[in-house]
Amino acid sequence: MSSLKLTILGCHSATPRVNAHPTSQYLEINNKHFIIDCGEGTQRQMRKYKVGFSKIDQIFISHLHGDHFFGLIGLISTFGILNREKPLHIFGPKGLKEVTLLQLRVSKSYVKFDIIYHELTSKNSELIYEDEKVTVHTIPLNHRVYTNGFLFSEKQKNRKLNPEMIQQYPEIETCDYHNIKAGKDVQLQNGEIVKNERLTLEAAKPKAYAFCSDTAFKPDIIPIIKGADLLYHEATFLEDRIDLAKKTKHSTAMEAAKIAKEAGVGKLVLGHFSSRYKNEELFKTEAETIFNNVTLAEAGKEISL
Amino acid sequence: MSSLKLTILGCHSATPRVNAHPTSQYLEINNKHFIIDCGEGTQRQMRKYKVGFSKIDQIFISHLHGDHFFGLIGLISTFGILNREKPLHIFGPKGLKEVTLLQLRVSKSYVKFDIIYHELTSKNSELIYEDEKVTVHTIPLNHRVYTNGFLFSEKQKNRKLNPEMIQQYPEIETCDYHNIKAGKDVQLQNGEIVKNERLTLEAAKPKAYAFCSDTAFKPDIIPIIKGADLLYHEATFLEDRIDLAKKTKHSTAMEAAKIAKEAGVGKLVLGHFSSRYKNEELFKTEAETIFNNVTLAEAGKEISL
Repeated sequence: MSSLKLTILGCHSATPRVNAHPTSQYLEINNKHFIIDCGEGTQRQMRKYKVGFSKIDQIFISHLHGDHFFGLIGLISTFGILNREKPLHIFGPKGLKEVTLLQLRVSKSYVKFDIIYHELTSKNSELIYEDEKVTVHTIPLNHRVYTNGFLFSEKQKNRKLNPEMIQQYPEIETCDYHNIKAGKDVQLQNGEIVKNERLTLEAAKPKAYAFCSDTAFKPDIIPIIKGADLLYHEATFLEDRIDLAKKTKHSTAMEAAKIAKEAGVGKLVLGHFSSRYKNEELFKTEAETIFNNVTLAEAGKEISL
Repeated sequence: MSSLKLTILGCHSATPRVNAHPTSQYLEINNKHFIIDCGEGTQRQMRKYKVGFSKIDQIFISHLHGDHFFGLIGLISTFGILNREKPLHIFGPKGLKEVTLLQLRVSKSYVKFDIIYHELTSKNSELIYEDEKVTVHTIPLNHRVYTNGFLFSEKQKNRKLNPEMIQQYPEIETCDYHNIKAGKDVQLQNGEIVKNERLTLEAAKPKAYAFCSDTAFKPDIIPIIKGADLLYHEATFLEDRIDLAKKTKHSTAMEAAKIAKEAGVGKLVLGHFSSRYKNEELFKTEAETIFNNVTLAEAGKEISL
């Protein structure tokens, strides 16, 4: 079973259009469920693509341009209407707390659950979230306002039981499995020690997903995202408008592909397309000139690893 | 040609869903163009139903519940991206200015055009907008927060030229038409006075549209909206949940119909339906038991008078 699934909820830049939704993603990783960025209309896209509202306990906001956070207040408000009680953690730049609290106050929409704000200010990569299954580090980006990408990493997993080998030792009981998966050897009644490696198989390699939007070409993120299985990198422009990319601190498809190649990632997802391009296949074509495994973001697209 | 056209952009209560958009309307009256309420996703609905962004100079917000204003900041921001230069007037409760300015500030989305806030605090009906063609008065409503409906009225129109009669007086020239339409008599060269009534036809009766959402049943709005050609009145519930209507300060379809009947309006549009009702036709059926001309709001529906 796949332990990492990314669902694109929206992947276009600037203003929402009928068939172009601003940035938002739903990430399932090692049975944890996260929303990344929250452009206007995110909650509608979540409903459209059957994202369970009650599964979300953490929301990560890259930066405070409207196309990445104007949908946050509506989502928070809807959590309230749905009688949410458990806390909601919001990670994002300083300012998010003030702006959401003011909106809740003027609309007298006091919600019953706690909102715990983790306001980010560091310009260095830092660990901002950790539980028993996953870590999240920031990826400092270079945009017109303070911006972070996020690296979501599965923790090292337990080794898997090897059923064939275990059957050879009838005295090993089900209640021992937990210790064996955690790496312990087994001592039999006759005193014999059975080494853990004999009873278990390699753990699945932990997966990692790097989200990088919005940013100018920034090669110094490469050490942070090195070897990630999946990289979403913004590609607002093609090389034909690299002047505009530089001016607005965005990337071209070519630049995104360079990052993917240098970082040795498994797969590259491009998004944040400018509406000036009618044929989005050109983003793929341009990136594929230097990196093989490229796919285009598209609302509703699921990418499972 | 119709001088009043209402386009429903969204008409459901509470949270946006895939096919249920929160309150927003586009009104064309006497060649003026207004947006009324601005739930999340309004700008996308405007694009979907081909509302010209550059025509909008006034936005009216009834109250500060999220389903009536969370889409405002995105629309303002998009006006900025579209390089709007002319001023935008926003009419609504106190608080709107603080909340939109803070959002623009944290997102560093300073717009080039002036936003002129007309913050409302009066509990009595007042004239809040007037130009050469239209007036807008508030309709104080009774909801959980400070709320106004809006009465949009065409001004008395000029009488129309009667071409047949004018042809009988060859010495009347095109340049005289302006004065004749404005009601003046004409003096011929022989001194004869031709009375205006002889040269003109009755002016078209000025039309009026009353928007009333959200509100508990409030009969004291009747004198304000008396004789309006079109009334939009919220009907969040049916009579089966009048308890909930009273508790949440909303109306039933029956109550909306009572207001329509007592005010002698031409046509009643119902909207703001709660998602608990799967069959919205029931709202029409209930209202029609006491008022004849009822239609249901629906995203994309145009009502021309």
